[in-house]
Amino acid sequence: MLPEWVYQECPDVSPIHRDAALARQAELTKPNGALGRLEHLAIELACLQRTEQPRAQRVPIIVFAGDHGIVAQGVSAYPQEVTIAMMSSFASGGAAISVLARELGLSLEIVDAGTLAEVPIKGVVTDKPRRGSRDFSEEPALEPAELASALDCGKRAVMRAATTEPDLLILGDMGIGNTTTSAAIAAALLGMSAEQMAGSGTGVDAAGRARKAHLIDVALARHGLATPSIAAERILCAVGGLEIAAICGAIIAAAQRRLPLLIDGFIVSVAALAAVRLNPSCRRFLLSSHQSAEQGHRLVLQALNVQPLFDLGLRLGEGSGAALALPILRLACALHNGMATFAQAKVPNRS
Amino acid sequence: MLPEWVYQECPDVSPIHRDAALARQAELTKPNGALGRLEHLAIELACLQRTEQPRAQRVPIIVFAGDHGIVAQGVSAYPQEVTIAMMSSFASGGAAISVLARELGLSLEIVDAGTLAEVPIKGVVTDKPRRGSRDFSEEPALEPAELASALDCGKRAVMRAATTEPDLLILGDMGIGNTTTSAAIAAALLGMSAEQMAGSGTGVDAAGRARKAHLIDVALARHGLATPSIAAERILCAVGGLEIAAICGAIIAAAQRRLPLLIDGFIVSVAALAAVRLNPSCRRFLLSSHQSAEQGHRLVLQALNVQPLFDLGLRLGEGSGAALALPILRLACALHNGMATFAQAKVPNRS
Repeated sequence: MLPEWVYQECPDVSPIHRDAALARQAELTKPNGALGRLEHLAIELACLQRTEQPRAQRVPIIVFAGDHGIVAQGVSAYPQEVTIAMMSSFASGGAAISVLARELGLSLEIVDAGTLAEVPIKGVVTDKPRRGSRDFSEEPALEPAELASALDCGKRAVMRAATTEPDLLILGDMGIGNTTTSAAIAAALLGMSAEQMAGSGTGVDAAGRARKAHLIDVALARHGLATPSIAAERILCAVGGLEIAAICGAIIAAAQRRLPLLIDGFIVSVAALAAVRLNPSCRRFLLSSHQSAEQGHRLVLQALNVQPLFDLGLRLGEGSGAALALPILRLACALHNGMATFAQAKVPNRS
Repeated sequence: MLPEWVYQECPDVSPIHRDAALARQAELTKPNGALGRLEHLAIELACLQRTEQPRAQRVPIIVFAGDHGIVAQGVSAYPQEVTIAMMSSFASGGAAISVLARELGLSLEIVDAGTLAEVPIKGVVTDKPRRGSRDFSEEPALEPAELASALDCGKRAVMRAATTEPDLLILGDMGIGNTTTSAAIAAALLGMSAEQMAGSGTGVDAAGRARKAHLIDVALARHGLATPSIAAERILCAVGGLEIAAICGAIIAAAQRRLPLLIDGFIVSVAALAAVRLNPSCRRFLLSSHQSAEQGHRLVLQALNVQPLFDLGLRLGEGSGAALALPILRLACALHNGMATFAQAKVPNRS
């Protein structure tokens, strides 16, 4: 049903480079283990990148934007036109992710993967099978061919980024209504109720959240997704979103090219969960960044079996949480590559 | 008993700048609160620095080193000469904090505040009242005049740093045996047993940790510190350390000059707790960075009423945890200062 590339096996990690990195960590001038998770980050990156010098310098950010038919049901605290307005803002440099990209020296590509925009936006790559998804409370959100196109859109973005020989990738999302779509996808993938999964998104109140959860649960039942073990392809068509499918395709395509991904918040994590269901071999290229304030994020990270580096109560999306975690990864690499060994520094080791 | 400057009131924060920063955060193109703790960090820094543009660019690191007589009792996994060897390593650029300082573009000053070194070390400021503290299991670690000198040493280091007009300060520690000294100080300050407070330090095993805790509890009883509400001055003389006292003095002196401090792990946090006991008004200039793996750190942070930004299982000291947290602070400032408002970006706000 989906393009064949989606199912192609991702490369293995390199046990030789893992062993070399482990040995080096034990020789650096610090009690072994004293750099905690930073040691693991450097080791993991070394064996994903097949190198003795793990790097996190060149890290393109790609933000995918899409609109969601379900917004007609009043699930968001913000009006639908914010999706397009924010896309422009990303491109013109005033949004959070634009500031973070600038500060960290990262390239930022914005992809309109399915917003309602009728004309191309300046500074934005337009690559969409349709304008917005359908309202999944009334009909399937995407046709199979539209889902396939959205996955291809993600792959194309990764191939553009790959020409700059990146060390890893950060993916981000923008789409009014996309916490509702993501909660629906995650609930269906994990066989959970939306009551457990749906959060406050951009800031709906308790009554709004309850209404959102109920709407999702009714829709999941209507689409026959309220039982476990439904195929990810079917779930993404029934309740998916175009930018989420594009992120899902980008994750698989990046992992197939041996590009690690620093996973952002709820939306990107749900796309990652769908990617792992479509192609389990991409799992090993996922690095987690943060635990967001969105209710379902913890459940999705648990299902991905990744442990966040921090929880700062973020709930913005855009790839912002991953960008905020990048300095920790960079410093982990700098310490791994730049510290002296006990022998070099002539420091006595423990007896 | 101590120099008069220690007790002088620190400046107040600026409520005007807090209100302005709060108002600005509400106007930036994001759901209000969506940047979580980053919003609070920027607001806190704005009102400490009395500015509309909080900054965390110029951040000198000062690492204080000292030796501890208690090491004679076999409390550490590493030999005592590591203190001096690591001081040299800080100065020659191969240690963790040297790598972090270089990556983050920060100046690094190393102060020998009381190691056993008999001659000055190249690249290290020597400013010590004596070589090493006394073994507190046998006698008081410091005489009152030595404690006063160590506090002055911290103040002098802050005054050297202040000439570069820093935005905030990072303080670090080095001293074989100093988790034992710090656990003794913290247990006495908080009226707790060493069993609760003493951790594994650089990596002693369970039996070593139990022996360390017992040694401390016996010493606290011997010095009459096993009851609550003992003066911090008395505690620091009985079981203190020279680099810890210097850090304590540096914290008070920095706060008196309106310099916020990004607090590191267990040792620096214990010095901060002692500083707050000596001069409660310095409390408002303490910014927390991380939760370390050292057992007592959580208890000390709770007593300081600061919440760590992350827990990465670090247990190195040197100021390394604070340095690792600095990029988050810098990005919080960049977002606060650099993001567009809803009006500027012409993005519709929530109704």
